[in-house]
Amino acid sequence: MSADEIGELLSAEFPQAFFPGCGLSIERVDYGDVSVCRQYHEEHLRPGGTISGPTMMELADFAMYVAMFSAVGPQPLAVTTNLNINFLRKPAAADLIADARLMKVGKRLVVGEVTIRSAGRDEPVAHVTSTYSIPQQR
Amino acid sequence: MSADEIGELLSAEFPQAFFPGCGLSIERVDYGDVSVCRQYHEEHLRPGGTISGPTMMELADFAMYVAMFSAVGPQPLAVTTNLNINFLRKPAAADLIADARLMKVGKRLVVGEVTIRSAGRDEPVAHVTSTYSIPQQR
Amino acid sequence: MSADEIGELLSAEFPQAFFPGCGLSIERVDYGDVSVCRQYHEEHLRPGGTISGPTMMELADFAMYVAMFSAVGPQPLAVTTNLNINFLRKPAAADLIADARLMKVGKRLVVGEVTIRSAGRDEPVAHVTSTYSIPQQR
Amino acid sequence: MSADEIGELLSAEFPQAFFPGCGLSIERVDYGDVSVCRQYHEEHLRPGGTISGPTMMELADFAMYVAMFSAVGPQPLAVTTNLNINFLRKPAAADLIADARLMKVGKRLVVGEVTIRSAGRDEPVAHVTSTYSIPQQR
Repeated sequence: MSADEIGELLSAEFPQAFFPGCGLSIERVDYGDVSVCRQYHEEHLRPGGTISGPTMMELADFAMYVAMFSAVGPQPLAVTTNLNINFLRKPAAADLIADARLMKVGKRLVVGEVTIRSAGRDEPVAHVTSTYSIPQQR
Repeated sequence: MSADEIGELLSAEFPQAFFPGCGLSIERVDYGDVSVCRQYHEEHLRPGGTISGPTMMELADFAMYVAMFSAVGPQPLAVTTNLNINFLRKPAAADLIADARLMKVGKRLVVGEVTIRSAGRDEPVAHVTSTYSIPQQR
Repeated sequence: MSADEIGELLSAEFPQAFFPGCGLSIERVDYGDVSVCRQYHEEHLRPGGTISGPTMMELADFAMYVAMFSAVGPQPLAVTTNLNINFLRKPAAADLIADARLMKVGKRLVVGEVTIRSAGRDEPVAHVTSTYSIPQQR
Repeated sequence: MSADEIGELLSAEFPQAFFPGCGLSIERVDYGDVSVCRQYHEEHLRPGGTISGPTMMELADFAMYVAMFSAVGPQPLAVTTNLNINFLRKPAAADLIADARLMKVGKRLVVGEVTIRSAGRDEPVAHVTSTYSIPQQR
């Protein structure tokens, strides 16, 4: 699936989460290798001026979802079974970029890793591994 | 810290996240052993009628944050370093209850586990382990 | 499966890992809820006099394997897909007891948690969550 | 520290685990970026002819340990606090190569990822993230 096709699928299936102005965007889609962005918004701040953990977990889950679509096609009923996140550094007050890369595309399980960076910086602020379970075709 | 003291601290430090009507509440606080609730809201749904993963990750992080306060006192600058979540079952269209229990309260690291259930049901919908890093007193 | 049946299966399928004198034993087996033991042996020590991490990971994997058998029967081709371990305290120079409890017994995935303690002590030295994938019957 | 210096430190501090003929070797050491090898041995097999999970977890922990030394110098009392492994594919009956790369080198915590492959193959058989806690200098 292309970035546009995935965007349309998400708008149709998740209108509450992915809509114009939601702050999430799909920047690049290759097979099993995608880049997405969360626009900076003060609402996501927590004490110390850093972006909240749940904001980064949501972004990582979104990145993995897009990466899974890029490899296995439209599977809106696929579900995350595991997500592990390591928070590495305090993010800047800036957009967050998440690069997801699939490490395994199986019939039943898709496993990938996501690296999150502040826009314009090299060092990762968080690293995620995650597994999606794909419903069986019957 | 008591449930009321933690609620006041959160309202003061996280006014964007914890405010009247936000849907999160602190139900019970013992030392290192707490229960919190996320009120059901249709906005958190995803395809298949289930509550979204990020909603559960945010609730687990909130539960751990409250549990950490219950054991080490006001530490608003403590940060999550790791969170691992296993999604076990499709949640009901109901409130979510998260029970957090600390397994280690060290000087530098606090480690706990969180079990999330749909209100009124026994089987867990998700299980989380998480680590907080406590800033050193100087 | 009972403790004896599981022991016989392991002896037959894993003669290199589970044999008389290997130091691993099955202490108790209920449905999805088991207890296993690793006998103390100086070989597993690391600097500082503590038992090595890999020794505890191996014990946790063994405990999960026995717990899976207790719930889904003989499935020697089941494979671990994920294991997450938090090391909590320095173990004593003593036997290690691992209690495994399944949180989900699905057709495709089995998810459980394992708590490891030094024999005779209450505080956990490590906590593990792990997922097994069950091959489909055909 | 160089590969030779790290090998000497390990031989001195872990004579039970790292000795001539133990099957583990250090192949390459750059700052926070190392490669280690586990020689193939039939003893590590499990049903289905695959190499056991604990063998891969032990190798990943060894790779992280060497990577940590490469960045922070001799710290034999550093301890693993968390290790998360995803098993991706059945390994070949061949040597295992583990590449470890540090993502964060902090004063208190070191976080890295490890990719394990069968010698001569591109696809990863397992992926690990792990955190080490560094004792404070006094």
